[in-house]
Amino acid sequence: MALAEDLGLAREVEDFAGGAGYSDGAYMPLDELAVPITDFGFLRADACYDTAHVWHGLAFRLDDHVQRFRRSCEALRLDPGLGDAEIREVMIRLAQLDGRREQMVQIICTRGRVSAEAPRDPRRNQNRFWAFTRALDAIDSKLPEGARGLGVHISDIPRIPPESIDPRVKTFHRGDLTKALMEAMDAGADTCLVVDMAGNITEGPGFNVFAVAGERIVTPEAGMLEGITRSTVMELAGELGLASESRAISPEEMRGADEVFISSSAGGIMAVTRIDGTILSNGAPGPVTQRLAERYWAKKTDGWHATPIPGLA
Amino acid sequence: MALAEDLGLAREVEDFAGGAGYSDGAYMPLDELAVPITDFGFLRADACYDTAHVWHGLAFRLDDHVQRFRRSCEALRLDPGLGDAEIREVMIRLAQLDGRREQMVQIICTRGRVSAEAPRDPRRNQNRFWAFTRALDAIDSKLPEGARGLGVHISDIPRIPPESIDPRVKTFHRGDLTKALMEAMDAGADTCLVVDMAGNITEGPGFNVFAVAGERIVTPEAGMLEGITRSTVMELAGELGLASESRAISPEEMRGADEVFISSSAGGIMAVTRIDGTILSNGAPGPVTQRLAERYWAKKTDGWHATPIPGLA
Repeated sequence: MALAEDLGLAREVEDFAGGAGYSDGAYMPLDELAVPITDFGFLRADACYDTAHVWHGLAFRLDDHVQRFRRSCEALRLDPGLGDAEIREVMIRLAQLDGRREQMVQIICTRGRVSAEAPRDPRRNQNRFWAFTRALDAIDSKLPEGARGLGVHISDIPRIPPESIDPRVKTFHRGDLTKALMEAMDAGADTCLVVDMAGNITEGPGFNVFAVAGERIVTPEAGMLEGITRSTVMELAGELGLASESRAISPEEMRGADEVFISSSAGGIMAVTRIDGTILSNGAPGPVTQRLAERYWAKKTDGWHATPIPGLA
Repeated sequence: MALAEDLGLAREVEDFAGGAGYSDGAYMPLDELAVPITDFGFLRADACYDTAHVWHGLAFRLDDHVQRFRRSCEALRLDPGLGDAEIREVMIRLAQLDGRREQMVQIICTRGRVSAEAPRDPRRNQNRFWAFTRALDAIDSKLPEGARGLGVHISDIPRIPPESIDPRVKTFHRGDLTKALMEAMDAGADTCLVVDMAGNITEGPGFNVFAVAGERIVTPEAGMLEGITRSTVMELAGELGLASESRAISPEEMRGADEVFISSSAGGIMAVTRIDGTILSNGAPGPVTQRLAERYWAKKTDGWHATPIPGLA
């Protein structure tokens, strides 16, 4: 493999079939990438991250992901030690090493280990940058046979409020979402949505949500990650002549919507056809969801917001 | 080293001077213990832990820590794969390998990696158990010269509320505490306290807090970890004829208290002599704090609640 040789890696292409990893200037198979147990990124969930996806060999909105990652780092006073162009370069090289035309590329900055001189001062820890690739695993890629959309459970576990942890900063603080997800799966749903302290819908584990009412799409405005695919949906809605609005949405409004869909980097735009006991849009993706999803994939095929990965595009 | 030989470790005693680690049946120097980057314990902060301390070769309330760890695991639907007696045995062996008479022993259960069959179902991940030792690092061990107690900043960042993440379950969801701690240090304080959504005091990063009013000690009753040293303080207070109570405490009450102290496994009972601009008990540990701390260390010297570590006690 030319790239592995260029990088001085005594590796075969098969070594990266399960994913590629990066840390401290070194590229390696994903299985070899491990975080010291004493890194505060683990022991304090003191880290931020971002994840871009590659589809048909094209990385989507790569710079938007790098820029959001930079904002997350700054909000947490973390320094990845690499400039935006260097991070971008690592991501592209990792995607090349991985070799799959469909994959996710995740970048992470951890607080690192304590300094010997000031073991109680996180400002003194040596921050670290990490990156790795994994399979593109869309939320709707494992639907039961015959299902034409996702079944969602609305949990009454409230998302960690913005006053405590800013949800616009992409962190690993997801215990609330994990608990809600397991309860949703116990109840036979595919995934979950969680509410805020006032009981309004915020987000699900790794995705934003939209309700469709006629020719208008609405999405929560606060208490959740401002997803890059969420912005993409708003942009596409404008092109299709649909009104879009971000505002508070109650579970009742969500259940009574004409259509509901979710958005994520991994899956794009995915129809929700069931919320707990309520069937939406006759159990099939509705027309607005379909128009948005079709336009999304068509534009991506045309190279919209794309960074081609050399050798994969 | 006899124990290392018994465990089949081709190691010198010096290899463990920086701490000892355990995972999957293997003991190793702490520097070699690392978590796969794809473990959800890292990528989702989906883990629980507990930390006991060893002082003068005596582990304190070891079974209480193991039992609380078990309750944390059950609350998060995690299975460490070891029984309580086995976990206890790993902790004792690690402490022996570490060899320091003063040390911390931490146990962790992570969600583990996703299963290949159900990559979106955390119930299917293979959970993992981890343990390691590190230096006993009391919060008040690095006070500036001349300081006779801790300086504390009361942050207005609210602790993640119990509705989202149960604070009685010991997890790594500490971004709120880390942010508050860095702000406290920026302001020249040693550590911080955070409030709940109603503005009442909850806890600090890794410790509980008490206010003293006359012969009565009061401590927050909700929104925080129910510390083992916190229970110990209540027990000691009873022995000393002090009334104790857990209830809501406002920052104003805390600032106006006769004395304030904090409790943690790493440091025991530590005086707070400054809260932001307010000097407490004339800038020195107050009489009630001193009586409690003296009794705490005297009883520990006598082997109270102690598990002697073979070779260290």
